[in-house]
Amino acid sequence: MVAAQPTGLVAALDIGGTKTAAALVDAGGRLLARARRPTPAGGTGEEVMAAVTGVLRELAAADPAGWARAGALGIGSAGPVDAQTGTVRPVNIPGWRDYPLVAAVREVTGARPVVLVGDGVAMAAAEHWQGAARGRSAALCMVVSTGVGGGLVLDGRPYAGPTGNSGHIGHIAVDLDGDPCPCGGRGCVERIASGPNIARRALADGWTPGPDGDDTAAGVAAAARAGDPVALASFDRAAQALAAGIAATATLVEIEAAVIGGGVAAAGELLFAPVRRHLKTYAALSYAANVAVVPAHLGTDAGLIGAAAAAAQTLGLRRFTAPG
Amino acid sequence: MVAAQPTGLVAALDIGGTKTAAALVDAGGRLLARARRPTPAGGTGEEVMAAVTGVLRELAAADPAGWARAGALGIGSAGPVDAQTGTVRPVNIPGWRDYPLVAAVREVTGARPVVLVGDGVAMAAAEHWQGAARGRSAALCMVVSTGVGGGLVLDGRPYAGPTGNSGHIGHIAVDLDGDPCPCGGRGCVERIASGPNIARRALADGWTPGPDGDDTAAGVAAAARAGDPVALASFDRAAQALAAGIAATATLVEIEAAVIGGGVAAAGELLFAPVRRHLKTYAALSYAANVAVVPAHLGTDAGLIGAAAAAAQTLGLRRFTAPG
Repeated sequence: MVAAQPTGLVAALDIGGTKTAAALVDAGGRLLARARRPTPAGGTGEEVMAAVTGVLRELAAADPAGWARAGALGIGSAGPVDAQTGTVRPVNIPGWRDYPLVAAVREVTGARPVVLVGDGVAMAAAEHWQGAARGRSAALCMVVSTGVGGGLVLDGRPYAGPTGNSGHIGHIAVDLDGDPCPCGGRGCVERIASGPNIARRALADGWTPGPDGDDTAAGVAAAARAGDPVALASFDRAAQALAAGIAATATLVEIEAAVIGGGVAAAGELLFAPVRRHLKTYAALSYAANVAVVPAHLGTDAGLIGAAAAAAQTLGLRRFTAPG
Repeated sequence: MVAAQPTGLVAALDIGGTKTAAALVDAGGRLLARARRPTPAGGTGEEVMAAVTGVLRELAAADPAGWARAGALGIGSAGPVDAQTGTVRPVNIPGWRDYPLVAAVREVTGARPVVLVGDGVAMAAAEHWQGAARGRSAALCMVVSTGVGGGLVLDGRPYAGPTGNSGHIGHIAVDLDGDPCPCGGRGCVERIASGPNIARRALADGWTPGPDGDDTAAGVAAAARAGDPVALASFDRAAQALAAGIAATATLVEIEAAVIGGGVAAAGELLFAPVRRHLKTYAALSYAANVAVVPAHLGTDAGLIGAAAAAAQTLGLRRFTAPG
C-alpha cells in the first residue's frame, strides 16, 4: 500500500459560539502560527462563514510556507455536527442550520483533506494526546462552561462516532422529570451543571452577589469558598448532575477517567470534591466504581490541538496522537 | 501469520439467576446439543458452581464428538463480570463475589480458550449476529425482564468493554433524586422499568389484579390493554425511563437502533409506543433523534447464541459474526 507522505504539519480550526480560531500545528502539538476573531454567532450563516474564512486567510498570510505545507485541516465545531455530510447546526449559532461548512471551508483550503468533529470530540482528542487523559484506554473528557460538552476515548483512541458527536454528556437526561432544556430535552446535565445554571439556581435560592457585583458562576464560587450555604448548595447540585452523567458513561462504556475542564472547573475542589462524593452513589457497580476525576491539563487551545489530532488520526499520521 | 484452524463449532454457557444452560453452537448459529438446569442462586458459591459443572458435563455426554471438537467456550453470565480476571460477582447470585468462574470452568473444558462476557453483551452479540440488530453499525440491545440489562454494538461489532460489562443500561441513573436501587445507586432505569417495578408501582397506585390474581407485570399489561388508567400509567413511566436511557446512549455513542427483548417487551406496543413517544423528548439533538426502537428477534436462546458469538469473535472465527 502506498501511504500519503506525512507532512508533519496540519491546520486546525476551532469554531465556538464566542470565538473562532485557527492554527498550524506540528507533530509535537506546538501551535506554529495562529489567528482568531470573535464569532458573530447571532449573524446570518454567511456572516459567520465570513469570519471563518477571514481567520483562515489570516492564518495563511501569517505563515504562507507553513500553510502551503499543511497536509490537512481539522475542524472542531460547536455541535451538533454531521461528519458524514460535512454540515453543522450548532445550538448557539442559529444562522447555521445544516450549513455546508466543509464545502465552504474547501474554498479556502483547496484540495487538502478536511476532517470535521464536534468541539467536545476535539477537546477529548487533545487531552488524550497531550493532557490529562494521556495513556488512558477509555475516558470521558468534559468542558463545563457556558454549556457542558464532552468527548470520549475508547479502545485507546478518540471515539468521534459516525457523525462526530459522541460523548456529548451535556445533553443526557439525569432528571427525567426535570426542567426543559433549550436543546428540546429535559433534565439534561447542562441544564443543571453549566455555569449560567449554577448562577441562576443560586440567585433563585436567595444568594446575593458580593460587593464586586459578579453574578456569574465565578461569583457563586467565591461566595461558596467563603462558606455561603446557598452558593455551596448550587455547586453541589451541579456536581451531582455531573456525577450522574459520568457514572452513566462509566456504566455504558467502562471509562477509567473523567477529565473536566472549562471555566466552571476553575473552581477546583469546590467542584471536584462533590463530584467524587456523588460518584460513589451513582457509580455503584464494581466495574464502574473506580473512575478517576481529574482536571483538564490543556486550556483554551485544546480545541485547536484536538482538531489537529483528529485530522492527523484520520490521515494516519501516527506521530500526532498518543499510543493506544 | 498462521491462524488457528477454525473448527466451526464452539461451546456456549449462559448463567442467569434462574437457569443455567449450555450448548454446542455451529457457525450458522444452530444449537446442536444442549443442557440446562435451574441455578441455585441462593446457594453457596460451590453449590452454584456444581450446577454449572453439571450442565457442562451433561452437554459433553450428550454429544461427546461435538464437545471434543468445540474450539472454545463462550460464557455469558449475569453481571457484573470481570473479563480481565475471569471472575464474576452477579448481583443476583450472592454466593459468587469475585468468584473465579473462568478457572473453575477450565477444570471441565481443559485447555481450550474460554471467553467471559456479561449476559447483556452476549444478548447484543446474538441480536447483531442473527437478530434485530443485524446490519446495524451501532445499537443498544436491551433485556427488560426481572431486571434490565443490555449490551452495545459499536463500529459494526459487539463492544464488550475492557471488563465485559459495557451497555449495562439498567444501572444508569435517569432520576438523580429517585428511589434507591439495590445496586447501591439511585434512580436507575431498572428501578423504574423492570417487570417487578412496573407491578410494584401499579399496586402502590391502586391497581388491583384481575380474577386470575396475576399481580406481575404481565397482569398489569393485561389490565392496561383493557384500558385501566393506573396500569397504563405504570407502563408509561417504565417507557419514560427506558426512553431516557436509550436517549443517553444515543447522545453518548450515536446508536442507530435500540433492540428490546425480555418478558416485559412481550407487552408489545403497550411498551414500544410510549418508548418511541418519550424518546422524542429526550433524544432532542439532531444526530440522536432517529433511533429505531424495535423488538428483539431471538428469545431465550439469545444468551447461548451470543456467548458463542463472543467466543468466536475473540478467536477470529469470522463466520460466526455478522459483517461489520
